[in-house]
Amino acid sequence: VSLRGLGMELRCRCIKTESRQIGRYIQKVEIIPANSHCEESEIIATLKKTGQEVCLDPEAPWVKKVIKRMMSSRRR
Amino acid sequence: VSLRGLGMELRCRCIKTESRQIGRYIQKVEIIPANSHCEESEIIATLKKTGQEVCLDPEAPWVKKVIKRMMSSRRR
Repeated sequence: VSLRGLGMELRCRCIKTESRQIGRYIQKVEIIPANSHCEESEIIATLKKTGQEVCLDPEAPWVKKVIKRMMSSRRR
Repeated sequence: VSLRGLGMELRCRCIKTESRQIGRYIQKVEIIPANSHCEESEIIATLKKTGQEVCLDPEAPWVKKVIKRMMSSRRR
């Protein structure tokens, strides 16, 4: 079983991060902490309509706010 | 293209959540906000060694702490 098969990334997945505040277009996010292959944590958002993956800056205040809101969201 | 193919889940993915504090075993997490198919936000952690997926309680303080730490982690 390749490490890749286990979902283990062998390098950083993000080259650049999205600076526009795209919170409302995000369907879900994946948070990958720093590990032996990538020395910074990475946040990868999947967009609603297209399923496109976009990297977000873990340090950006708007990203932290979006994630906090996603964790406590309930359907109204 | 099936919705499933777009990574869109058509129902809740979590039946129960892990109560033990397994932070150090987590390789990455996925956060899915409440949506038309599932009325509560869900957090799915992938474990390091096995690649097993485990659901975490978005309201649990230890989960919030783990996610905060994952977002600001840098390799020492």
